[in-house]
Amino acid sequence: MSGTESPVLAVLCGDKHPPDMEPIEQMAAVRYTDADGLADALRDADALFVYDFLSSAVPDAWHAANRLRWLHIASAGVDPVMFPGLRDSDVVLTNSRGVFDNSIAEYVLGQILAFAKDFARSVKLQSERTWLHRESERIQDRSAVVIGTGPIGRAIARLLRAAGMSVAGAGRTPREGDADFGTVHASGNLGEWIGEYDYVVAVAPLTEQTKGMFDTRAFDAMKDDARFINVGRGELVVTGDLVAALGSGHIAGAALDVFDIEPLPAESPLWTMDNVHVSPHMSGDFVGWRNALVGVFADNFRRWHAGRPLVNIVDKQLGYVPSSG
Amino acid sequence: MSGTESPVLAVLCGDKHPPDMEPIEQMAAVRYTDADGLADALRDADALFVYDFLSSAVPDAWHAANRLRWLHIASAGVDPVMFPGLRDSDVVLTNSRGVFDNSIAEYVLGQILAFAKDFARSVKLQSERTWLHRESERIQDRSAVVIGTGPIGRAIARLLRAAGMSVAGAGRTPREGDADFGTVHASGNLGEWIGEYDYVVAVAPLTEQTKGMFDTRAFDAMKDDARFINVGRGELVVTGDLVAALGSGHIAGAALDVFDIEPLPAESPLWTMDNVHVSPHMSGDFVGWRNALVGVFADNFRRWHAGRPLVNIVDKQLGYVPSSG
Repeated sequence: MSGTESPVLAVLCGDKHPPDMEPIEQMAAVRYTDADGLADALRDADALFVYDFLSSAVPDAWHAANRLRWLHIASAGVDPVMFPGLRDSDVVLTNSRGVFDNSIAEYVLGQILAFAKDFARSVKLQSERTWLHRESERIQDRSAVVIGTGPIGRAIARLLRAAGMSVAGAGRTPREGDADFGTVHASGNLGEWIGEYDYVVAVAPLTEQTKGMFDTRAFDAMKDDARFINVGRGELVVTGDLVAALGSGHIAGAALDVFDIEPLPAESPLWTMDNVHVSPHMSGDFVGWRNALVGVFADNFRRWHAGRPLVNIVDKQLGYVPSSG
Repeated sequence: MSGTESPVLAVLCGDKHPPDMEPIEQMAAVRYTDADGLADALRDADALFVYDFLSSAVPDAWHAANRLRWLHIASAGVDPVMFPGLRDSDVVLTNSRGVFDNSIAEYVLGQILAFAKDFARSVKLQSERTWLHRESERIQDRSAVVIGTGPIGRAIARLLRAAGMSVAGAGRTPREGDADFGTVHASGNLGEWIGEYDYVVAVAPLTEQTKGMFDTRAFDAMKDDARFINVGRGELVVTGDLVAALGSGHIAGAALDVFDIEPLPAESPLWTMDNVHVSPHMSGDFVGWRNALVGVFADNFRRWHAGRPLVNIVDKQLGYVPSSG
């Protein structure tokens, strides 16, 4: 940007505006809008900040985007804006890569320890004032495979290894000697290797290739005492197949922070399964995350405004920021 | 041992005998006993294996120990056998140092992550089928002080640091540059430094000096948002003072695996406090722990039988195996 007119920035955010926007309001004409007003806000807008990152409103309003050049989404996964109109356009897409890496890694390690130390049962026994000694598991030397080799998957791998676990990864391209994972399996043939691991962690981006990759065939190939942890997207999983695998003992447990329908419907059997830990899509959302998300956007906005290269540019054909297979 | 007669070994174990004793039964006349039979079993016994390590039966039967030379206890803490009759005798005391280090360290890290990620509340919300997003804390760069610089405390410090926390220790002798702790504070003046830490982990041996060290004065000196984790002994804490500090918000939470009375009485207010995690003295007890305990004893038994030096010899004046302040 170097014209004399301020650029027009549309911000999709619903009722609650993003914090820390004052510096950007100095540089742009900012139009805050909810889903209903998005088409009006997009008309003659130069950039769109999708702060309400789970909204599905962008495709319906896309027809109004007559001069949009840049779309930034306040999330790591870009699947909510992966529709043909954006993919086939010249609009540059960027994401919030990096914000959630550490908090999601800590959440995954916490869930593994919660399984190993039987914490959920301790909470239930405490509520009944019941003293019941049990033996617990150690995580040292237990194995985990992290499916998804982006920055979040790498942060998970590093933290689990630091805690004494044996870790591998899975991504598009199989290889050895990866700095964070050591062995990286090909996610395309997970039946061949998934049975080796005590913990299976899903953090792959949601694409046409990964949608439904965790199905009956995958769960059947896991060890009977394996636990499945999903911090990626609910649609990576065929939920009915997961419920069946948990119910029949084909796998031992699951910690699920994401679901194909969110909020998880009250009638879902996952709520009441003893071997399931349900949390409400919060694994990455540390105190201060909203400020951090706006910080990533603001950094990119300043680059864009100054005509410098953007960071975190998504490959719209792949559906994620490429760099690590 | 090098005489022609087999030595006599008394084993205090209640109904359930220790596993893996066959090799020792080849080398000694083994008398398995419960508390009631302990005096009879001790008469003319050369060694005593206190497998039922929470039993308080030894002092009452001590008068019968007419030729005892060695007592081994299947625990890290030796407070159940720290009575004057043993302390003032020539009987060598050894413990099971090392068995619990890793499992207790994992338990402590798990409890810290459970607080940071609000897992206990997630369990309760799940039981109500309630989807309630919350923001969580990160543990990276949060601080912990581990009070107790023996091998369990060191394993805790190493694991918390590996997970990204900032760690210090506290023991008898203040110092800098400790390999595991960096700074070691003097546990005698904890009011001067305890207010610096987000997590306070108690794993000191129970001695006359440490009994009741966590009292109103200590809790008042902690930060309001600090959490207290006890994996040492319940008697390190003045329980009423802890309940008051938790109730008034002088500290933010506690994870308690040990209590001054065990099992924790049904009427204890700790059971129902939302900011308390109760577990039944199980933090160290991994699957296989009983075999590991007998393994430590059997190793020492072979040394004793062959006339070689024992390992894990407790300083009966200090009340623990000295080596690390």
